[in-house]
Amino acid sequence: MGVIVQKYGGSSVADVARIQAVAARIAARVAGGDGVAVVVSAMGDTTDELIALAQRVHPDPAARELDLLMSTGETVASVLLALALQSRGVRAQALTGAQAGIYTCGTHRRAAIVAVDARRVRDLLDAGEVAIVTGFQGVRGAGPDSEITTLGRGGSDTSAVALAVALAADWCEIYTDVDGIYTADPRVVPQARRLRRIDYTAMLELAQQGARVMHPRSVELGSVYGLPIVVRSSFGGGPGTVIAAAGADLPPALAYRGDPMELDNKISGVAHDRDVARITVTGVPQANRRLHRLFTPLAAAGINVDAIAYALDSEGHAADCTFTVAESDLGRALQVVGATAVELGAREVRTRRDVGKVSLIGLGVQDTPGLAAQAFAVLAAAGIPIEMVTTSQIRISCIVPETRLEEAARLLHQAFGLGAADELPTVAPVAPAEVAAWVG
Amino acid sequence: MGVIVQKYGGSSVADVARIQAVAARIAARVAGGDGVAVVVSAMGDTTDELIALAQRVHPDPAARELDLLMSTGETVASVLLALALQSRGVRAQALTGAQAGIYTCGTHRRAAIVAVDARRVRDLLDAGEVAIVTGFQGVRGAGPDSEITTLGRGGSDTSAVALAVALAADWCEIYTDVDGIYTADPRVVPQARRLRRIDYTAMLELAQQGARVMHPRSVELGSVYGLPIVVRSSFGGGPGTVIAAAGADLPPALAYRGDPMELDNKISGVAHDRDVARITVTGVPQANRRLHRLFTPLAAAGINVDAIAYALDSEGHAADCTFTVAESDLGRALQVVGATAVELGAREVRTRRDVGKVSLIGLGVQDTPGLAAQAFAVLAAAGIPIEMVTTSQIRISCIVPETRLEEAARLLHQAFGLGAADELPTVAPVAPAEVAAWVG
Repeated sequence: MGVIVQKYGGSSVADVARIQAVAARIAARVAGGDGVAVVVSAMGDTTDELIALAQRVHPDPAARELDLLMSTGETVASVLLALALQSRGVRAQALTGAQAGIYTCGTHRRAAIVAVDARRVRDLLDAGEVAIVTGFQGVRGAGPDSEITTLGRGGSDTSAVALAVALAADWCEIYTDVDGIYTADPRVVPQARRLRRIDYTAMLELAQQGARVMHPRSVELGSVYGLPIVVRSSFGGGPGTVIAAAGADLPPALAYRGDPMELDNKISGVAHDRDVARITVTGVPQANRRLHRLFTPLAAAGINVDAIAYALDSEGHAADCTFTVAESDLGRALQVVGATAVELGAREVRTRRDVGKVSLIGLGVQDTPGLAAQAFAVLAAAGIPIEMVTTSQIRISCIVPETRLEEAARLLHQAFGLGAADELPTVAPVAPAEVAAWVG
Repeated sequence: MGVIVQKYGGSSVADVARIQAVAARIAARVAGGDGVAVVVSAMGDTTDELIALAQRVHPDPAARELDLLMSTGETVASVLLALALQSRGVRAQALTGAQAGIYTCGTHRRAAIVAVDARRVRDLLDAGEVAIVTGFQGVRGAGPDSEITTLGRGGSDTSAVALAVALAADWCEIYTDVDGIYTADPRVVPQARRLRRIDYTAMLELAQQGARVMHPRSVELGSVYGLPIVVRSSFGGGPGTVIAAAGADLPPALAYRGDPMELDNKISGVAHDRDVARITVTGVPQANRRLHRLFTPLAAAGINVDAIAYALDSEGHAADCTFTVAESDLGRALQVVGATAVELGAREVRTRRDVGKVSLIGLGVQDTPGLAAQAFAVLAAAGIPIEMVTTSQIRISCIVPETRLEEAARLLHQAFGLGAADELPTVAPVAPAEVAAWVG
């Protein structure tokens, strides 16, 4: 018997009809003989509604109480899904985070999973039952001293991957509202195509650089334990995208016949991110030119700094420092930077919101020196100014004017042959029963 | 420092405004120096709505899953009440049944409390915090093997009394939508007056005979541990009714000056119940005249039988047996009785729905032989036929036609001097701050 963990997000269980559809999908998989544990998010916008309700009685609700409140959303969804399975004659049990043995640290609203005691889930699977586990939530301690915690952003994906690791599952399937990981955002780059497979590291970079499908946190957990993750649509029946280590052998059901070895492609995809703002601090006097004095307070405030450019002025005395932050962090960042700039005797602080970041991502970046130059040339030929550049081992990112961002993404996507040239045959949607036969 | 447990029902916390009002009341009590633990029900109709939601995915949802689902209702209410207190600057923590140490047996939907480990609640109170505990729910076991259970009817009152006992609280206050226990239902008997004090046993009989304010179960628990229970309105500020052992000394705050020793009154009140149906099985042959053969199957089906009349027919051969059940149980009762009647060779099964039960209740019943005769005479004088009679040590109940039920209640209330004659001075509503000064 194979063991699979499936995770369904809030939009997949937004109403009773969708819950029934998810139950049908799970039932088909169980009929195929696999042991199935399911992790489920709260229905639709439940979590936001619960937070809004809390804010009606307290302007800034305590994290501990919010966690307890939010945890009810996943509990309701798990119970309804378990009942929907039972009404189809499939034995199923809904489990809270505590019952599924998902132990966390005690930090509320962004708890980390410290251990998963999957005995109860395993026992259910061994008995031929489906375990429906509440995502996003865990518990610290047991009995009267226990505290219910939530995992913060990407929490349910992380619950699913952690549970899959603890169960030594064959893989973890993440069902969402898109049918896989794409070479670029299809809304912006029409030629974007679904990747059949992507390496954990490239997926992490894609996620961090603007692809919203998977949260980096769960990808990282999968990477550490070498657990394959499959991203699929909960509405269609396509094969989705497998996230796994480059070159690793996959379970036969995931290794599609005729795989074109696309990992040979040096670039996996193009990501773009509008949530970027630029801050420039000019004229920092020579005596105070210590970068850490600028960035330590930002770090203390929990604000991530991305691209950094630093240069002496033409006289070689005062320094200008330009860096980017998430546009959504700009207000807080300016409070911190403003205070520091005064302290350092800087001349002025300037900001720009109208920039964006386009990134080329792929394992090939690290051993292909010409790639960065090629990317710059593509943008220059189109007259798109590159304002800043940052790179990692497998990524080249350019800060460009926001008005040219989508054009830049399309141009890079085309120039690096991510689209039509090696386009893969499209997989037609299939019914759940067929999926079970084909995947399981 | 005194320790008080307060319980607020669903109508008291039906919306955000009411939750704020309850928070104000609790805050006033805390300001008075008492340690306060609060037990709260789900908001308004939440429990019914959750059950309806479950029934949309399963016609007959499993008890285990329903318990998990329903438990979220009390969790939401407890969090909102804790946050409302926090926003007033009162330190408070919401606790689930498991966190409050309310351990139950494993029976779902009607679990019994087997132990309360109140250490955490006690620690919060000692630290000057208010513990807001989810009513109606408990837990069996701890950690991954734990199961969330609900207590069934009267569950939140029972949670509150059990917690009060475990905390060795001074008393337990039940806040509801009426301002105390009345000598009769004021909607039917306009002369009904609020009792200042009633004995546990008389309260139990009142509750069992139709008074809906308190569930017998929590009264019984209070009785076993001698814990005074105060029933009050959550909307006004009146003193309510104290339920305590007859003759027991009360805490000074509960022993109102000028108490007219109303326990000397032989009758505490008149209850009436429309939810009564009569079943008659006629012509049971002599050979099968064993009552247990009729009633054992009903007991096995969980159907309570109340009044029983049994007589041989005029020839002294076949027997007729008449008994009453709750009208809401009639359908199921008839299935059981129908099958048994065939088996016993009875002539026929007849039913009447148009009957009700009126009861005189009070500790005086047991040592005043003339009371029953007096009650029968009152009804006879008005031409109200008494169809059956049942009695307990402290109760006389008559089954009468439902059309005459309210009239019977009014006549008995008047005849036994429960109204105007010893009417107590009305207590005007007072503001929460005054209540705290006056009660605490």
